[in-house]
Amino acid sequence: MKFTKSRVHLLLACVLVIASTLLFASQTTPQSEPLPSWNDGPARKAIVEFVRTTTDKTNANYVPPEARIATFDQDGTLWVEHPMYTQVLYCLDRVPAVVKADPDLANVEPFKTVLSGDREAIAKLSKDDLLKIVSATLTGMNVDAFQAEVTKWIKQARDPRWKRPYTDLTYLPMIEVMKYLRANGYKTYIVTGGGQDFVRVYSEQVYDIPPEQVVGTAGGTKFSYKPDGRPFLTKEPKLLLNDDNAGKPEGIHLMIGRRPYAAFGNSTGDRQMLEYTKAGNGTRLAMLVLHDDAKREYAYGPAEGLPDTKVGTLDNALFDEAMKQGWIVISMKNDWSRVFAFER
Amino acid sequence: MKFTKSRVHLLLACVLVIASTLLFASQTTPQSEPLPSWNDGPARKAIVEFVRTTTDKTNANYVPPEARIATFDQDGTLWVEHPMYTQVLYCLDRVPAVVKADPDLANVEPFKTVLSGDREAIAKLSKDDLLKIVSATLTGMNVDAFQAEVTKWIKQARDPRWKRPYTDLTYLPMIEVMKYLRANGYKTYIVTGGGQDFVRVYSEQVYDIPPEQVVGTAGGTKFSYKPDGRPFLTKEPKLLLNDDNAGKPEGIHLMIGRRPYAAFGNSTGDRQMLEYTKAGNGTRLAMLVLHDDAKREYAYGPAEGLPDTKVGTLDNALFDEAMKQGWIVISMKNDWSRVFAFER
Repeated sequence: MKFTKSRVHLLLACVLVIASTLLFASQTTPQSEPLPSWNDGPARKAIVEFVRTTTDKTNANYVPPEARIATFDQDGTLWVEHPMYTQVLYCLDRVPAVVKADPDLANVEPFKTVLSGDREAIAKLSKDDLLKIVSATLTGMNVDAFQAEVTKWIKQARDPRWKRPYTDLTYLPMIEVMKYLRANGYKTYIVTGGGQDFVRVYSEQVYDIPPEQVVGTAGGTKFSYKPDGRPFLTKEPKLLLNDDNAGKPEGIHLMIGRRPYAAFGNSTGDRQMLEYTKAGNGTRLAMLVLHDDAKREYAYGPAEGLPDTKVGTLDNALFDEAMKQGWIVISMKNDWSRVFAFER
Repeated sequence: MKFTKSRVHLLLACVLVIASTLLFASQTTPQSEPLPSWNDGPARKAIVEFVRTTTDKTNANYVPPEARIATFDQDGTLWVEHPMYTQVLYCLDRVPAVVKADPDLANVEPFKTVLSGDREAIAKLSKDDLLKIVSATLTGMNVDAFQAEVTKWIKQARDPRWKRPYTDLTYLPMIEVMKYLRANGYKTYIVTGGGQDFVRVYSEQVYDIPPEQVVGTAGGTKFSYKPDGRPFLTKEPKLLLNDDNAGKPEGIHLMIGRRPYAAFGNSTGDRQMLEYTKAGNGTRLAMLVLHDDAKREYAYGPAEGLPDTKVGTLDNALFDEAMKQGWIVISMKNDWSRVFAFER
């Protein structure tokens, strides 16, 4: 490309004008504050301080952009898990379709109880019963068919308390933390005990996290061919990764291959992920969401001594470990000025 | 920030000047040609045409940026695999250290043969023997110790033919394809039958691919605590993913969760990945590297009828499938003007 001399001068002048304008702007405009739904306090301070330290090239604990990994538990950390995990509700809703395909199941437990619609009896199902339902409703189908089913369900299902889609029940302050970290070069991952294939269906739309950045409990798939020769994958009942407790750091190694610099959880299932994160060198951030807001959400765990109802809790032992290890506990009641985006 | 009216006018004028200059530039400057180490021919054309189609918003087969996934086999597709996989050479080199830690192994096969240094006998080791060596040298240690060992080895080991580090033996034209795809919004992944933990050690440095974008054969790890309470992960002999043949699409689903739009391989172990890629809707690219250049690299597979020497080959059946399914075969001899970056 050839420039005329006058065009070069004109361009140079423009560069100077724009540079001076930008300088002027940076001196007079306050930067928009990050984490607007957080009250000022130790939790908010810890996040801002962590980002400041790890992104400051002159700091001894500077972290190069490619190593900036942050992991988030989902249920109870990014969205409501009470009184039951959303994915379990999906599985319960799928039981009629499973029984329709195999009518003999109508008289077999635990399917019989689920079909009865008796909420009290359903709430009392054992862990083994739930596993039978999970296996019957999450495996055996083409992965594309599964994705289509979840997509449909997640659009139409409603939480009974707020009468809203479950995807509305994400915690706005945590969405802000993820955005803030990403704006500072962090790659954000969900590391969930929930099904990897399930969460991946909506993670991009709900959290701006692409499917490949969701690590979850994962089963195997089986590659085979349709009669016309086209290949497809079937979801198998074989468990590859139980992404809970020790399975979280193991899953992080398998799927990411690096130790996170920041990790966020809310229950005993997140303990090992937080320990593994904190055991790395330099500055590491470990945070626990404490459900202590009975009015705006729920209060359970050590906050209220609420009984564990099939969801993980921040129990007293974990609370003590957090205090001892320098993890930061996030009080929903005190640290969050707003819980949900739909609140005014 | 407050702008004065005159500053706004000045800025507007600048935007116009710059816009017109950019327009002028795009009309007169030829874009730097992609894929400089490729000869003009059907393979190069197929790649350029694929990128043009899938990134053109007006094209019916446009692919949105978040769905742009391209997967590459490593051995024989991105770097030399002949006469033996680099990772197997690493394992053989580690045998003395393993025997030092457990001296009884010195008299046990296949370790005895490896220690003898008899190259001919080593080359004749069975697949089962090699598996024993792989298991003894790749599992049982702290993942951090393993990464440190591989880092050290990969720096000092030399290929006997070129007398260079193995990491120099990457194919420049394929590095160019990866760069070209990334420049057009594609996320590039390695999907290798080799060990995931092994390839992740050098993938960023050699291919500009971060560890989390390496899918490979993966074993489990075990989370536990040191006496001082610090947690660590140990590599276990439990196989989670055999990332070869049908394991490649299964691994892609597990680790990425989306079907690739482009896939590159060179052997029967890549067949299912290429089939799975091509079975997606819209425009998909499937390419096979044919080793037909005995002078600059090696000739094996259907090109020369060379016997299979423990490396996968593009056999006649796969070659026929490629022709029938519209996959593109890359002739190293004809399609590449340069094979290695160190060639002048």
